[in-house]
Order: sequence, then C-alpha cells, then structure tokens
Amino acid sequence: MVSTARKVTDSQQRFLDAAIHLFARHSVAGTSLQMIGDELGVTKAAVHHHFRSRADLLTAVVEPVCAGLRVSVEAAEALRGRHVRADRALTGFVDVVLGNRELLPVLTGDPGAAELLGSHPCLGDLTSRLTALLAEAEGSDGGHLRADIILSGIACAAGPRSRHLDPTELRGHLVDTGRRALGLRIPRP
Amino acid sequence: MVSTARKVTDSQQRFLDAAIHLFARHSVAGTSLQMIGDELGVTKAAVHHHFRSRADLLTAVVEPVCAGLRVSVEAAEALRGRHVRADRALTGFVDVVLGNRELLPVLTGDPGAAELLGSHPCLGDLTSRLTALLAEAEGSDGGHLRADIILSGIACAAGPRSRHLDPTELRGHLVDTGRRALGLRIPRP
Repeated sequence: MVSTARKVTDSQQRFLDAAIHLFARHSVAGTSLQMIGDELGVTKAAVHHHFRSRADLLTAVVEPVCAGLRVSVEAAEALRGRHVRADRALTGFVDVVLGNRELLPVLTGDPGAAELLGSHPCLGDLTSRLTALLAEAEGSDGGHLRADIILSGIACAAGPRSRHLDPTELRGHLVDTGRRALGLRIPRP
Repeated sequence: MVSTARKVTDSQQRFLDAAIHLFARHSVAGTSLQMIGDELGVTKAAVHHHFRSRADLLTAVVEPVCAGLRVSVEAAEALRGRHVRADRALTGFVDVVLGNRELLPVLTGDPGAAELLGSHPCLGDLTSRLTALLAEAEGSDGGHLRADIILSGIACAAGPRSRHLDPTELRGHLVDTGRRALGLRIPRP
C-alpha cells in the first residue's frame, strides 16, 4: 500500500520495516538507530546514511499511513450527506489500519511517537479532518469524543493481539463496531 | 482512589506521581530512574532506596488500577443477567479510567508498559475477566473484539486530550459510546 510522495528504495524499506518491528516491541523511545542497525547486522553509520535522525526515520515510517489517510479522507469529503461521508471515512480508516497493523497501535498509544509526530506536516491535519467527518455523523453532543474512542480503539484492537482472526471477519467487526458507536446504519449481511 | 494491598508512604507516592507524569510524556522505555530522581531533585540512589528496579516501580504504579479494577469486576460478576453485568463492568471501568487519566493511556498503548506488565500478577487476569463480561453482553460473534475496541478506545480518549471537557459530561459520553457499541440499553436522560 506504499504510494509515497518521496520514493523509498528497497534498502530504505528494510530499515523502515526493522524500525516498525522494534517500535512495536520496545516503543519509539526505547528504539535507537543502533538497535535498528543491530537488527539488520549493519553499523549505526549505515542507518545514518539513509536517515539523518530518529525524527527523519519516523517521518519516513509514517509516510504510507499519511498517503493512505489522505486518499481516504479526501474521498469521504467529496461525498454528499453526513452519514455517507462518515461511513466512507470509517471504512477507509479501517483499511488504512489493516494495511499498517504493526505500526498503528504505536502511533495511537506511544507517547514517544506522539512527541516526535506533533510537528509532522500532515498527520495532525488528516486526523482532525477524519475526526470531524465521524463527529458530524450525528448532530448530537460528544461527537468528537465518540470519534476519538472509535479511532483509537480500532487502531489498538487491530494490532498484533487480533492476529489470530480471519482478516475479512476482523474487518467486518471493526467497521460494524464503529458504525454502532457512531449511530450509522449497519447493512444487512 | 488508592486502596493498595501494600501501603504506599507519602514519599513513595511522590515518586509514583513523578513516574506517571514522565511515562505519559516520554513513554515507559524513555523514562529512567535517573529522570525520576531529576524530576524531584534527588539522586538516583534515593529512587533506588524505594524501588529496587523499574519493574518494581511499574508494579507499584499499577497497583491502584488493579485494586479499582478488581472491585469493579467482582461487583459485576456477582450480578445476574449478562446485560446488567456488562453494564456494571463498563461503568466501573470508566470510573477506574477517570481516576487514573494520565496513566491509563500509557498502560493501553505503550509497548514498553505491555512488556513489563506481561508478567504482572493481576492486571492480565482482570483485563480478561473484564473483556469477557463485556463480550458476553450479546451472544453474537466478535464480542471480544468489540470489547477490546471499547476498552482501548475509552482508555485512550479519556487521557490528556479530553482535559478540556467537563468531567460529568465526559463520563456520560464515555459510558454511552460503550453502551452503543456493545448493544446495551441507553437509559433516557
């Protein structure tokens, strides 16, 4: 699902995969460039050759998530009717999460990631637009909080701990739980 | 809301508060005993005097959450009727979260915390029992996943980013979103 603005080379992708794997196990703050080098059997200098800093590396890690979210949010915003827009935003988000199952729980829960990403050029903006799309599904109070619960909950629950579930079934349950919580219509099977 | 098995002295509590504050900002892996000492203007040895290791400290940090969860889960399990039990477990969980708003997002999302708590004597067991209570609300498929989404989502959303909301209103929205997602009855206001 990579469709990044900046092309990532195969060798850079190896570093990104190793980084995500270590973030998920040891959190962002617990992962050093040295550890990423060790994981791949190369020196820290080799990691530095591709990414000047941890912040630089994290930006590259997050790029596919940003690209996926942007497509999904823009597609939802282009639709008419707040229920239809919210439903499109929700299903699009679930698909981005399922395409990045190891990374999303880190981005959602890890304070180290939040700190580094606070100044990220796109992620904050896209998350706000996504939250607004879901919050507007109903005119009632508490829409932003409901959206926040559902987005965080889906990102955490779709992580490694639901690895044993069938992907189609998992997707169905994630979407349906979101629809219930947001008051969206659940299509009959 | 502290009602720990082992009594915590006032000076130990100062260390625990400082630790939670640093965990929430820098994640568990990003927080050293040295940093906790620096935060309080004491030496690392002074921290060591109270807590032999990081694991020891984290266990003490988590103790009030365990105590609160135990009371809530046992109260729910003692009731008859799966909807009533699920509703009691949900509202009890929301109250534990609201009593530990800085810590709960860390416990939910931080891989460093998960790693250290994997062997914790009570938290894993209580979380399983809580999940089972919520999952059984309906007989349908996907109950455990729905419960996981709601528990993780509530823990994350009740953290610092909802600091601006009125506590009573916040509690109402957290409970109602859980009820919707789990198919529980929402009482009329």
